[in-house]
Amino acid sequence: MKKHLFDPIPESMPQELVTDILRSESVRIERIVSFGQASPDGFWYDQSESEWVLLREGSAQIRGNDRLRELGPGDYLNIPAGTRHRVEKTAENARTVWLAVFYK
Amino acid sequence: MKKHLFDPIPESMPQELVTDILRSESVRIERIVSFGQASPDGFWYDQSESEWVLLREGSAQIRGNDRLRELGPGDYLNIPAGTRHRVEKTAENARTVWLAVFYK
Repeated sequence: MKKHLFDPIPESMPQELVTDILRSESVRIERIVSFGQASPDGFWYDQSESEWVLLREGSAQIRGNDRLRELGPGDYLNIPAGTRHRVEKTAENARTVWLAVFYK
Repeated sequence: MKKHLFDPIPESMPQELVTDILRSESVRIERIVSFGQASPDGFWYDQSESEWVLLREGSAQIRGNDRLRELGPGDYLNIPAGTRHRVEKTAENARTVWLAVFYK
């Protein structure tokens, strides 16, 4: 069945909104919507899955491998399993829409 | 390294442009750009991999499971392995940009 990436997204939420798009044994696709949220101070993601992430709308700063990357619409990034990273910032007063593909 | 989904895309090409974005054992992500191309008459895709496809720009008609689906920007579709399908049409005089995730 055909579905739409932006349907439905509220304008604002106190937490990030994570929606499953696809789940299989080898891959998981999620839509993640941030409303200005960032990773808590001192928190680092260190995932056992690899993650490919596409920023679709909004903006974000991701820190990893000693680099800070600014992402805007259309930018994508591959984060291999075990790469410590954190979201320093997402757009304030706007939605940041991510497409994330987790794989092994 | 950060990269951009739309970079670079020519304005027109005689064939579809397929660009590898990611390859791993379990998943393959491609950007596919169509410039009005469709599947040849009588041709059906019948893939051993499953495919999740997101239309990012342009428009298309996909036929499968006895249904014709119109896709516009933001629409996505999951095509399980072994599902016969074909692209009836993509936008003429415009680019149609797909993100395709192939998985097992």
